[in-house]
Amino acid sequence: MKIARFRDRLGKIKYGIVEGDRIRPAKGDPLSGLTPARSPVAISTVKLLAPIEPVNILALGQNYKAHVEEGGDKLPRAPILFMKATTAVIGPGEPIRIPKVAPAEVDYEAELAVIIGRRARNVQESEALNYVLGYTCANDVSARDCQRGDGQWIRGKSFDTFCPLGPWIETELDPMNCRVQCRIGGRTYQDSSTALMIFKIPYVISYLSAGMTLLPGTVLLTGTPSGVGFAQKPPRFLRPGDTVEVEVEGIGVLRNPVAAGE
Amino acid sequence: MKIARFRDRLGKIKYGIVEGDRIRPAKGDPLSGLTPARSPVAISTVKLLAPIEPVNILALGQNYKAHVEEGGDKLPRAPILFMKATTAVIGPGEPIRIPKVAPAEVDYEAELAVIIGRRARNVQESEALNYVLGYTCANDVSARDCQRGDGQWIRGKSFDTFCPLGPWIETELDPMNCRVQCRIGGRTYQDSSTALMIFKIPYVISYLSAGMTLLPGTVLLTGTPSGVGFAQKPPRFLRPGDTVEVEVEGIGVLRNPVAAGE
Repeated sequence: MKIARFRDRLGKIKYGIVEGDRIRPAKGDPLSGLTPARSPVAISTVKLLAPIEPVNILALGQNYKAHVEEGGDKLPRAPILFMKATTAVIGPGEPIRIPKVAPAEVDYEAELAVIIGRRARNVQESEALNYVLGYTCANDVSARDCQRGDGQWIRGKSFDTFCPLGPWIETELDPMNCRVQCRIGGRTYQDSSTALMIFKIPYVISYLSAGMTLLPGTVLLTGTPSGVGFAQKPPRFLRPGDTVEVEVEGIGVLRNPVAAGE
Repeated sequence: MKIARFRDRLGKIKYGIVEGDRIRPAKGDPLSGLTPARSPVAISTVKLLAPIEPVNILALGQNYKAHVEEGGDKLPRAPILFMKATTAVIGPGEPIRIPKVAPAEVDYEAELAVIIGRRARNVQESEALNYVLGYTCANDVSARDCQRGDGQWIRGKSFDTFCPLGPWIETELDPMNCRVQCRIGGRTYQDSSTALMIFKIPYVISYLSAGMTLLPGTVLLTGTPSGVGFAQKPPRFLRPGDTVEVEVEGIGVLRNPVAAGE
């Protein structure tokens, strides 16, 4: 099932079930339960929003071997956790804004995002996927100069608009073997599979939940494969006028234009 | 004015104004406005809670020279931002739990915490304090082995109970020259002043708000002075049975026992 969050023609924010090119509005929310209405509407008549307002955004670095290698780093022995501020979230179609204070090296990172649906603490790897509500596409936008200069990655990954999510939540995905792609202006820069993750999703959920509660509505970005902008020759950073597409097989395409920021 | 959040004798969560050893319950919340009631109650009859449920917890590393030096690091050229998961928050009196997965090197860090009261984005240093609701005490509890092993600090600083906040919000503090202390079992381990911060609070708010929105309810931990546990000879890490006190002059004392975790 595909669950979208959207603003309807009257400006009201709702959830709904996606059925082809239509969406069936529903009462409630995906964490507490949805009651679909009778009449679907055309998706083209609504504005899709980020499908969740995360309580915390957890994220993994260096979780694909080829990406670790393109960055010249050693393979991690354990998952590397960082966070993004929740204020960075935008939805499909909303512009990624290049910050005035860090305009030079704004990079894309196509990722599969996991949305936690049940309170998870000290969960076993074999049970971990039972705590997942569903999956969406994420772009872990990153200002490389800030990441490098700060050492800690938070600021460079938390500017406003640096966490596009969408276009909707897919609840029935097998997350272990999905193609993940990133395209800019139609050209493919990243093309890999979640099968190549160093630390698989059930292990990561179990690992992170050891001593740390993952609340319903937590979003977990699972790392990006190789092909990011800093590793291109020459580097390919985002510029106003670009359009970035993150596609995860079985979910859909998250498309965001790039614009100048303030 | 001191604003506390508490659970009353009927189990209801409320805000109130602290008046000596009494508390005057109020309607509303400190971000949207408080209307005090007529009759105060004794603080001893209520259970104080963390005075805010943060939307995001931003935190600074290495913001006191003597602490940078005790860690053997170079002075930072710009504020070093990291985050703590909001699930780490506990209130006064609640136990800091030593995580089973990282029991060996759990450390204390006494800090002044800033609570943002108005949406702040691209604010000038000279205007920055106008965006502050008030201040409270924080203990930036940190598992040093995780910090060191991971490189990124988030996991080691985000275990459940690793962010004690309280005992209340002081709205009339001058944050630029307050004594900050940490005591364990009555012995003083940290004793410094916010006057010794490398990056002062107005500058930090201005710096972080450049391109990143600080929402009302954002909590900013401003870094810890020297005297943390890993720098003691021999190291002094937290153990079940300890009681840790963080005191910030003009605010009060945040006291938490330490207990075994799961």
